[in-house]
Amino acid sequence: MTARSPPTPYYAVIFTSLRTEGDNGYGKMAEAMEQLAATQPGFLGIESARDGLGITVSYWDSLESIAAWKQNASHLVAQQRGREVW
Amino acid sequence: MTARSPPTPYYAVIFTSLRTEGDNGYGKMAEAMEQLAATQPGFLGIESARDGLGITVSYWDSLESIAAWKQNASHLVAQQRGREVW
Repeated sequence: MTARSPPTPYYAVIFTSLRTEGDNGYGKMAEAMEQLAATQPGFLGIESARDGLGITVSYWDSLESIAAWKQNASHLVAQQRGREVW
Repeated sequence: MTARSPPTPYYAVIFTSLRTEGDNGYGKMAEAMEQLAATQPGFLGIESARDGLGITVSYWDSLESIAAWKQNASHLVAQQRGREVW
């Protein structure tokens, strides 16, 4: 699904990744990240495509919203990795 | 292949598309657009992924380079469509 275009200006975060063999928890993490993004203030939409290379673009209303999301996302990653490892 | 990260600031153009049934010349056009981009001044790299939704991100050194590329790209599309139709 393509995200609807909101009035400008808005901001995009581009995440590009090359996958290694096997999922290694990537799918679960990516889904958790998307769900987190959707609950954040200033979130406008997300689009992703994958065929060997993966590209995910999320759209935001301000740089402040992006900073807050990144902060929360890094907590999420830390929690998830912690759960796996310990 | 992921594009190398140049020193900031640089600029990204995000092109997202939903494909219709059949190629309808899309593949040829997309390839021509990529080749054109690579010859343009200020071009830094391009990444694309497709799985139903297609996302192509091209990277540029300045907004001026992007404007020049868009100008040339619209000529390319006009030429290609003209060749097909007449």
